[in-house]
Amino acid sequence: MNDSTVDTIRTLVVLGSGNVAVHLARSFVQKGIEIVQVYSPTIDHARQLAEEIACRYTNRLADLHDADLYLFALTDSAIPEVLRQRSWEGKLCVHTAGSVPLDVFKPFTQFYGVLYPFQTFSRNVPLALDEVPFFIEASDKNVEQQLFQLASKISSRIQLANSQQRQSLHLAGVFACNFVNHMLAIAENILKQNNLPPESIHPLIGETVRKALIVSAEKAQTGPAIRNNTEIIRKHIEMLRDKPEWQKIYTFVSDSIYKMYHS
Amino acid sequence: MNDSTVDTIRTLVVLGSGNVAVHLARSFVQKGIEIVQVYSPTIDHARQLAEEIACRYTNRLADLHDADLYLFALTDSAIPEVLRQRSWEGKLCVHTAGSVPLDVFKPFTQFYGVLYPFQTFSRNVPLALDEVPFFIEASDKNVEQQLFQLASKISSRIQLANSQQRQSLHLAGVFACNFVNHMLAIAENILKQNNLPPESIHPLIGETVRKALIVSAEKAQTGPAIRNNTEIIRKHIEMLRDKPEWQKIYTFVSDSIYKMYHS
Repeated sequence: MNDSTVDTIRTLVVLGSGNVAVHLARSFVQKGIEIVQVYSPTIDHARQLAEEIACRYTNRLADLHDADLYLFALTDSAIPEVLRQRSWEGKLCVHTAGSVPLDVFKPFTQFYGVLYPFQTFSRNVPLALDEVPFFIEASDKNVEQQLFQLASKISSRIQLANSQQRQSLHLAGVFACNFVNHMLAIAENILKQNNLPPESIHPLIGETVRKALIVSAEKAQTGPAIRNNTEIIRKHIEMLRDKPEWQKIYTFVSDSIYKMYHS
Repeated sequence: MNDSTVDTIRTLVVLGSGNVAVHLARSFVQKGIEIVQVYSPTIDHARQLAEEIACRYTNRLADLHDADLYLFALTDSAIPEVLRQRSWEGKLCVHTAGSVPLDVFKPFTQFYGVLYPFQTFSRNVPLALDEVPFFIEASDKNVEQQLFQLASKISSRIQLANSQQRQSLHLAGVFACNFVNHMLAIAENILKQNNLPPESIHPLIGETVRKALIVSAEKAQTGPAIRNNTEIIRKHIEMLRDKPEWQKIYTFVSDSIYKMYHS
């Protein structure tokens, strides 16, 4: 065991004040981990989170306190920027990003890792973290063990994933979260434009997801595209004539559905 | 009140043996509506459903029994085909299709309507119909009332929708059900290809839908496309290089997300 690391992580500095920072900070505090300080380049944002969890805050990287772990809950591009602004030698640095490789930390310290929560966070939507899968990657076995132990305090679903797997998780998440949401937004818009109550689609959405989770989405596919019902497909594309970007989505998603089951 | 119609619908002939026919037939029988006969061009299919609900069956349209209502739970193209094969004069004919106009029946009888359940049905996945929105359209006020009364036996959410609105419901349903499911199928595939457990995406899917239903999908949008994070978008498209049809989806859905919030 190296002197520069500790056996059990008891104190954190949180860098960032966005949705991931807020949700992780709240959960860690609840589980007895001490957040000693919050850093954000925008002092008001740092203060807001710090007041909620009763800790100090700063917008100056030179003023960071000592802690067992520095949690970089920052946007992808901010991570290397913040790293370049001071020395991190001997400190344990961990980020939470899907698409930032582990070795972003390599030039700056020998102890580092990733703690990636595979979930969508909104500041004001409460969320139980204990069912959220956390994917861990670490510079060495010792750090890996420490991150496992730390993450286990807030979630029961901890797994290893290397940087390439984590990128794939992020990509899968774009389809399953961001793109699913956009399909729902288009559906809502179509209903509104035709004076139909948006909530009339809720049972269909609920059942679609319920079935996909039970039998797998690949097996649950239905609709005109998988049956190659060209008459309906043509009619639907015609109905979308005022929305060329939705027509393209209709066309290419239908093509992709057909190809998944007929090639 | 015309002699050829009845005040309250007590008996049905079900034409069709697919998922919609099965689910509606089961529900009506449970609520005391008598199904006197099931018709399907494939006699084995007719027999299978008829045995489950204990009624007669046939594959010959000439042998149809008398009933208060003939429920055309058939594919879109089969509805006019079946109509052409015998006389329906004076009979109450009702279909269940999203994209077939009401007046498909007009040349054949003066009493007709539509009973469109806005839901996805799988034969072997049990489903509570009482929360399913049913959209009704009818040849006249009397039929409309009868259909309201009939549908109210199996669902608490009955509404009127004209043929154009029903087509829009169907189109919205393709986005919210078929296309959402395909996004999930792509996500599952990406995880499998990278040796990641498919169920690790379930909490993300659940939360995505939960948020969309609470705050509306349009307001719940997150991800690289709405932030116009071109670096991530470029990387993701590069990761999909072996799947040109998924690359197209990624590109055009991202474009459409951006346009929804920046124009």
